Amino acid sequence: MMHKFHVNTQQKTEIIDITMQVQSAVNAAQISEGICTIYVPHTTASVCIQENADPNVHIDLLNALERLVPKDIPYLHETERKNAASHIKAALIGTSQTVLIAGGQLQLGTYQSIYFFEFDGPRSARQVWLRITG
Amino acid sequence: MMHKFHVNTQQKTEIIDITMQVQSAVNAAQISEGICTIYVPHTTASVCIQENADPNVHIDLLNALERLVPKDIPYLHETERKNAASHIKAALIGTSQTVLIAGGQLQLGTYQSIYFFEFDGPRSARQVWLRITG
Amino acid sequence: MMHKFHVNTQQKTEIIDITMQVQSAVNAAQISEGICTIYVPHTTASVCIQENADPNVHIDLLNALERLVPKDIPYLHETERKNAASHIKAALIGTSQTVLIAGGQLQLGTYQSIYFFEFDGPRSARQVWLRITG
Repeated sequence: MMHKFHVNTQQKTEIIDITMQVQSAVNAAQISEGICTIYVPHTTASVCIQENADPNVHIDLLNALERLVPKDIPYLHETERKNAASHIKAALIGTSQTVLIAGGQLQLGTYQSIYFFEFDGPRSARQVWLRITG
Repeated sequence: MMHKFHVNTQQKTEIIDITMQVQSAVNAAQISEGICTIYVPHTTASVCIQENADPNVHIDLLNALERLVPKDIPYLHETERKNAASHIKAALIGTSQTVLIAGGQLQLGTYQSIYFFEFDGPRSARQVWLRITG
Repeated sequence: MMHKFHVNTQQKTEIIDITMQVQSAVNAAQISEGICTIYVPHTTASVCIQENADPNVHIDLLNALERLVPKDIPYLHETERKNAASHIKAALIGTSQTVLIAGGQLQLGTYQSIYFFEFDGPRSARQVWLRITG
């Protein structure tokens, strides 16, 4: 089965922990050994696995992406949202992640959590899609 | 089964929509629920899921990658093709993507398509390999 | 089954070929058709598929990442290791890769190998986790 849940974002750029929602879907799927694919059906948001201990890492990450891909330099894609840079950031971080499952649990490193990366918020109904394969 | 198809590229850097070829392989595989792994067996090309509505997004993306990784600064890897930057772009965007399948259809967001990213063309027989897992 | 092996790194940043260890796990799994997910449970290291012919490509890649994400500019994440940039590099290159398996062999392009990317070494027991799905 494919699982889906929503994420609400509050900022233009923001990093939101979705590990618990993903683990809940793994529990519901009752698959103890396999892989979980986490997929974001958006072109200005991403999913990324990163540090869960110091929230400053998230700020450094968003700042580094803004330094590399500034919002306010000229782009051809001109919309009301002015989100050309958001697309480029999403292409760099990526649309999906795969996590191994063993004993019914997501296998993450000690300092890893799964994050939704918003690059063009705030948005009220961002989606995350999951497939758990045994 | 593993599926393969070819892509011909015309420019040094270019973004080519391969969504239809991937969906055709999903149809042929007759797997209605699962995941599709799209893999590029090259070190100067990538696969990426991005915006399908405004082609200017593709130009902005290629321009941003060229700004971040210029072709004409000094590199150690010196070949006739002068493609050191192409390798670095490919490492940033990545070698594979995974898309969920439900009801026999690739599950893409409204504005998402699957793209072959050429970073060192033109080339006459770039390859895309697919595996559909039920 | 989930497979695991260790990697020892010697430098602050370093690229280490792990293709043989991954193929050994594929052999042990006795799965001839499927996919192999290669996962790094760290937040300052990555896995990447890239050029295996000219080692200068690896130096160019590490230099380009250092130019894009310098170690010595100000970051909020301040630890003894001064590894904020290492986290950002790992987010750009990614935590996992998927490779197709056919005839019991990893399907890699002629010039592709699978690499562990160390961004915060040296470390004595970096881990790589694998899942082979039929």
